[in-house]
Amino acid sequence: MCPSDPDQAGVSTTFRFDATLSTAIADDGKPHPRVSAPTGPLTPDMLDKINRYWRAANYLCIGQIYLFENPLLREPLKAEQIKPRLLGHWGTSPGQNLIYVHLNRLIKEYDANVIYVAGPGHGGPSLNANSYLEGTYTEVHPEITPDENGMRLLFRKFSTPGGVPSHCGPHVPNSLHEGGELGYSLVHAFGAAFDNPDLIVACVIGDGESETCPLEGSWKSVNFLNPVCDGAVLPVLHLNGYKISAPTLQGRTSDADLAALYTGRGYRPYFVEGDDPEVVHQLLAKTLDDCYAEIRAIQNEARKSGFKKQPVWPMIVLRTPKGWTCPKEVDGIPIEGTFRAHQVPLATVRENPEHLEILEAWMRSYEPQQLFDENGTFIAELADLAPRGDHRMGGNPHVNGGRLLTELDLPDFTDYALEIPGPGQVVAEAPRKLGDFFRDVFKLNPTNFRMFCPDETSSNRLGSVFEATKRRFMAETVSIDDELSPDGRVMEVLSEHCCQGWLEGYLLTGRHGMWSSYEAFAQVVDSMLTQHAKWLEQCRDFAWRRPLASLNVLLTSHAWRNDHNGFSHQATGFVDNALARRSETIRVYYPPDSNCLLSVFDHCLRSRNYVNIVTCGKQPQLQWLNMDEALEHCSRGASIWKFATNDGGGEPDIVLACAGDVPTIEICAASWLLQKYVPGIKVRVVNVVDLTALMMPDVHPHGMDNMSFNALFTETAPVIFAFHNNRWLIHTMVHGRSNEGRFHVRGYMDRGTTTTPFDMVVLNEMSRFHLAIDALKHVPRLRSQASDVIDAFNRKLYEHHGYIREHLEDMPEIRNWRWTADLSEPSTPPPLAKGHPRAGLFSDS
Amino acid sequence: MCPSDPDQAGVSTTFRFDATLSTAIADDGKPHPRVSAPTGPLTPDMLDKINRYWRAANYLCIGQIYLFENPLLREPLKAEQIKPRLLGHWGTSPGQNLIYVHLNRLIKEYDANVIYVAGPGHGGPSLNANSYLEGTYTEVHPEITPDENGMRLLFRKFSTPGGVPSHCGPHVPNSLHEGGELGYSLVHAFGAAFDNPDLIVACVIGDGESETCPLEGSWKSVNFLNPVCDGAVLPVLHLNGYKISAPTLQGRTSDADLAALYTGRGYRPYFVEGDDPEVVHQLLAKTLDDCYAEIRAIQNEARKSGFKKQPVWPMIVLRTPKGWTCPKEVDGIPIEGTFRAHQVPLATVRENPEHLEILEAWMRSYEPQQLFDENGTFIAELADLAPRGDHRMGGNPHVNGGRLLTELDLPDFTDYALEIPGPGQVVAEAPRKLGDFFRDVFKLNPTNFRMFCPDETSSNRLGSVFEATKRRFMAETVSIDDELSPDGRVMEVLSEHCCQGWLEGYLLTGRHGMWSSYEAFAQVVDSMLTQHAKWLEQCRDFAWRRPLASLNVLLTSHAWRNDHNGFSHQATGFVDNALARRSETIRVYYPPDSNCLLSVFDHCLRSRNYVNIVTCGKQPQLQWLNMDEALEHCSRGASIWKFATNDGGGEPDIVLACAGDVPTIEICAASWLLQKYVPGIKVRVVNVVDLTALMMPDVHPHGMDNMSFNALFTETAPVIFAFHNNRWLIHTMVHGRSNEGRFHVRGYMDRGTTTTPFDMVVLNEMSRFHLAIDALKHVPRLRSQASDVIDAFNRKLYEHHGYIREHLEDMPEIRNWRWTADLSEPSTPPPLAKGHPRAGLFSDS
Repeated sequence: MCPSDPDQAGVSTTFRFDATLSTAIADDGKPHPRVSAPTGPLTPDMLDKINRYWRAANYLCIGQIYLFENPLLREPLKAEQIKPRLLGHWGTSPGQNLIYVHLNRLIKEYDANVIYVAGPGHGGPSLNANSYLEGTYTEVHPEITPDENGMRLLFRKFSTPGGVPSHCGPHVPNSLHEGGELGYSLVHAFGAAFDNPDLIVACVIGDGESETCPLEGSWKSVNFLNPVCDGAVLPVLHLNGYKISAPTLQGRTSDADLAALYTGRGYRPYFVEGDDPEVVHQLLAKTLDDCYAEIRAIQNEARKSGFKKQPVWPMIVLRTPKGWTCPKEVDGIPIEGTFRAHQVPLATVRENPEHLEILEAWMRSYEPQQLFDENGTFIAELADLAPRGDHRMGGNPHVNGGRLLTELDLPDFTDYALEIPGPGQVVAEAPRKLGDFFRDVFKLNPTNFRMFCPDETSSNRLGSVFEATKRRFMAETVSIDDELSPDGRVMEVLSEHCCQGWLEGYLLTGRHGMWSSYEAFAQVVDSMLTQHAKWLEQCRDFAWRRPLASLNVLLTSHAWRNDHNGFSHQATGFVDNALARRSETIRVYYPPDSNCLLSVFDHCLRSRNYVNIVTCGKQPQLQWLNMDEALEHCSRGASIWKFATNDGGGEPDIVLACAGDVPTIEICAASWLLQKYVPGIKVRVVNVVDLTALMMPDVHPHGMDNMSFNALFTETAPVIFAFHNNRWLIHTMVHGRSNEGRFHVRGYMDRGTTTTPFDMVVLNEMSRFHLAIDALKHVPRLRSQASDVIDAFNRKLYEHHGYIREHLEDMPEIRNWRWTADLSEPSTPPPLAKGHPRAGLFSDS
Repeated sequence: MCPSDPDQAGVSTTFRFDATLSTAIADDGKPHPRVSAPTGPLTPDMLDKINRYWRAANYLCIGQIYLFENPLLREPLKAEQIKPRLLGHWGTSPGQNLIYVHLNRLIKEYDANVIYVAGPGHGGPSLNANSYLEGTYTEVHPEITPDENGMRLLFRKFSTPGGVPSHCGPHVPNSLHEGGELGYSLVHAFGAAFDNPDLIVACVIGDGESETCPLEGSWKSVNFLNPVCDGAVLPVLHLNGYKISAPTLQGRTSDADLAALYTGRGYRPYFVEGDDPEVVHQLLAKTLDDCYAEIRAIQNEARKSGFKKQPVWPMIVLRTPKGWTCPKEVDGIPIEGTFRAHQVPLATVRENPEHLEILEAWMRSYEPQQLFDENGTFIAELADLAPRGDHRMGGNPHVNGGRLLTELDLPDFTDYALEIPGPGQVVAEAPRKLGDFFRDVFKLNPTNFRMFCPDETSSNRLGSVFEATKRRFMAETVSIDDELSPDGRVMEVLSEHCCQGWLEGYLLTGRHGMWSSYEAFAQVVDSMLTQHAKWLEQCRDFAWRRPLASLNVLLTSHAWRNDHNGFSHQATGFVDNALARRSETIRVYYPPDSNCLLSVFDHCLRSRNYVNIVTCGKQPQLQWLNMDEALEHCSRGASIWKFATNDGGGEPDIVLACAGDVPTIEICAASWLLQKYVPGIKVRVVNVVDLTALMMPDVHPHGMDNMSFNALFTETAPVIFAFHNNRWLIHTMVHGRSNEGRFHVRGYMDRGTTTTPFDMVVLNEMSRFHLAIDALKHVPRLRSQASDVIDAFNRKLYEHHGYIREHLEDMPEIRNWRWTADLSEPSTPPPLAKGHPRAGLFSDS
């Protein structure tokens, strides 16, 4: 018996549960230490077959961990047939195998549409084994044949050079996601279930994984699942009691406390516990039947009568021994049901002949010759337990979402153009027009596009989407609530983990979407992005993994305009981290204005298999390009901005380059200052919207060749580069270009504080004055003129410092500045673009 | 009434709660819509004073958000007295002010030791206001005097240039932590409570924050709190119902469901709800009295009779209207109690005279002239409600932990030296000796040092610590459990968020510690590290914030030895992100072996106010330096390794540089290969243990001047640099050094798969063969000899590729390689260092 439930005497719980809640809980809230074997729902024949199927999967798991040769033990096991390095985790395998075979039965029994999401760490052996038994592994890896040699290769490839990892990865067709980093199984499961009304996502959660914060925060996803239009998630919390070397918290929590916890989280928990296979098979079969019936009842009622209130969905707590069916003891030390069965329970079988014998006896206890025929093929009466074709959990197209992907019906983004009188003359909040565009994307694509956000859709100026759909909200609402609906398609939750994770699950199952975040707090999910990108990178090795819609992230509250929110809201590292991933997967865009933002996002929504990160502020800012210009600029990725350039197409004295909306303003203003105060200077302004265009073409597919690069930056002119992020990215990207030492980068430096918009660039030494001074210092031919101008600009910085502390806002010449072709000084702030709404009653900065 | 609890009719909950659980819940589980005003525990006089104190704090919050001048409204409010930009969040302020004044009462009533942790976002106005009222703000910012001019400055400084942020930051003395990024209040509160038996940490959690995954995963911290040796955490879940524009999930969850949830999480929830101040004052006072009594009863019992079982600790659910006491309606739109009161409820008062009038009437409704005297000083009878001296929550030394910091009693780390026969001749698991060292650190420092880890202390080879202390585990244990104890000081939980967060809270309150992680999964807390580092950076501006022990992170399962775990376990970005922070705070170390690891960690434990990140693998690897050599090497930060160098002190043909344990092995092997196969070549090996030593001295305080730099790297010799992380860090760090174009960096490239240890470096093009080929390509004078050797090395790479796929392990010449001064080929694998334990029965790779 797994030591999972210490005696509850003395715990004064007052919970009572309806007896129908659980087959294993008595009215007094205590679990039965033993349940006598139920007689149904499995017939004796079915029970026997299911048990043998389970044993076959267990056998294959052990084989993967240990065997180099002799996969069917046709001869006595020898030390040299053991792998030189033993990897993979046995502990979770028998439990996952158990769940898998029972889900197979459920699928066949009810013709159900079920996929499996694997949470427990290093559970690769189980997914590989089950995919192999159901035939899907062989279909995508034809060399892993359903015979002895195929089994030998299956074993050899596991966690060995050029083989497959010890956790689930894209190589195994029944895996939905990258299973290396723990914590995301449940949030992915919900993402998969949204808008898949027929689908049941069985999500197995390990009790180790369930200690992670992302997993704990994922349970609330049930509050966003609408039984009318969404599918179901059936969480199976698999408590085998131990992590690597200590008990898990939930493994030692009483059923009564767990029942309170999961009831409070909005679920109806079913408990299944035992260490006698026959008993557990019957209990689990019965419980799955009950859960299935409950799910369909919830859905049928909601689909018949319409959504009334949030249902209470079933979930299962399954307690079985860690490493169930492995040796009970080795060298007098208990193994089965203890932390010692977590990973590889016999680690020195190659060196220790007695342990080798124990291993062989353990493997033979599954009687492989009764499970596989003389060719090593899984015997037909057992293989027949698995579903057929796309009903197999490794064959279900939802697990290879590209098979289901349809093109988005996209409106013509040029119809949402912001009208501007000329470059840099009016201000607008760039995402407003994007919101109009998304509104119509929602209208045209009512079932396969969603937007995710931590409660900032309106604040991000994307509020137009509420003309097409609402915020998903399932609880009761009151009259003062705004734009809420149980079938809303804007998913707002104050959790970057849920936003990113739901979107990942939604995309992995063949749909489209985006999420938006504060730039600084996108870093909350640095590691999630890393894992998703790694999944996409590896999928390129498997042609049968069909292309997915890209993961699109919009960062609108960025470091440079978090002047007012202060230092904690200023960090640009999300992009840095993404750019450390393989370049075939990562795209980074810095649209400088509203029309470029539209063009970029249209491109992102049409792209496949990328992570697209788009950074563009939401505050009113100068607008530069009309739609035709934006189209051309974005299609090039980087180009010379002629209106701000006066080199007449010849060699400039200085190239002023920029990437990012705020750097663009400062660079244009620097060009304006230089042209105004340094007669004769030849300045060229280059704007970069697609950051990866700066890379070498052999490093990134968007990279410019040297001829294109030099056409923008010349071969020798000094370049002052104002960049949104840390300067090292630009230094790395231009490494190897002509005279790379001429690139002088100004970027974000973690120097901020609570301040004004212009002071933010001043503090980071990237203001127009700093940039103009930098430029002048690199143009020796103008040295005589330069020093007075440099002094004047330095005085401006000094004057600014005092002004903002007195008046709490930027100097008029900063607030009023706009691009004027005749270099005249404007005396009023630049007006809002035509038709742009004014600020409202409530601030949401 | 806040619309927080929709009618529960039809919800078939079967929960029942003891009536003593809550003062506001009836037996049927439904909250009373109204509770008639209780008559105690506050006397009418005390009730009146508390209410006026609360009004004073509310007034100060509004003043901070709006006022530029005229702080006491001595004259009619004019538009030009309103700040040009309105920032800060009103919504959370009245609730936090309410809790603060009631905690003040509790502290005085019981002479209690209480600190306040502020969770809700942008709640800065409330903390500033209460710190000002209790006098602590003025003590640390003497210019903010307790009079009209001080109040004016308090208002002006809020969220304005050079002022204070809109959330809590280090400027305000009652703040424990950086309050910008949401989600960490509760985990910090528990970190603060550990080993502070007398302390009660009141932790206010906003209902927005409570949707984040880190916050949801923090509730389980209660399972690690021992009532004998730890203090108490009193969570106050403040439900005001709305985020920026939508209801919060918990705001719309019934009391019955919340009670189930928090009971399941191990707490006893008390509910306080209302919108009538008199009622709420009495309810909250009574509830705090009850909670205090319960906490002390739990502690007294445990401290008298010893720890028996985990207690059920109290927590409070407080429901009050969002933006309570602001205008009920503006322009016919409801404000108070709605999302519109979340941020700035009247955003255009400068432009709209009617709104200006509404604002003035709102502010006057608090009757400031009754709260502050003719000088603008808080009237004495109200000021007297605050505790005195260090009992004030802004004066409590636990919130300025450096005041309590004592030196660790550290054993002499050189006593733990690993004995080695010479460089690169034996292997050892580097962290083992560090484990011995930590064991004795635990013994010598029984109450102010803790270690945190996601269940990998043993796997990380630090298991010796269990000779001194155990894993903290509070639930019941069984005989097969290993090294568990309710008073253990090794805190294992499978959550990077909890490890990092508990450690932060522990350090912020003046103690010492470290945590260890998989390198790849340390990225889970990239943003937490960013926030903590920003806190430390800002603290340098406030001399009264006393130095704290550094935050020490050990990354032992790193990218280069996650060959077997595959691609998902390979990522080096945690250090990249840290290095984007200000250089005075960040230290990054790559000790190449056991003795260097000891020296580095001793240094880290003695340091203050840093984030120290130490990366060193746990797998058996070659050992290089004896303790004397390690000491000298680590004190320099980088030095020439003479045993692997043959330039005789003259100019080498090539410098082979390395940082990281695996890069060090490959660089030394490359040097060995070059010396063996290219007679006459002059090679110099430079090892870098302190990465920041590479920076310029004006960029980082550890940076080398050019003379020291050139003494290592010469001025002109080509440098092949093998680096643990992404190569761009080295490119950036050597920017500006003599001939920077000669630095050729090999680093981690996200190219990995499941493979062998040596193949991992091959895949990343950083193997000894790649490095030797790189070197030869940059030594023109040896061109004639080089081509044959390059061919031979390329053949080796080809041979390797085939060998590992056949044998599943590295070629003997790789496995057997060690440093041999005579360049002879060893034929057996390098032995374990003297006294090093062999592998055991269970693998824990």
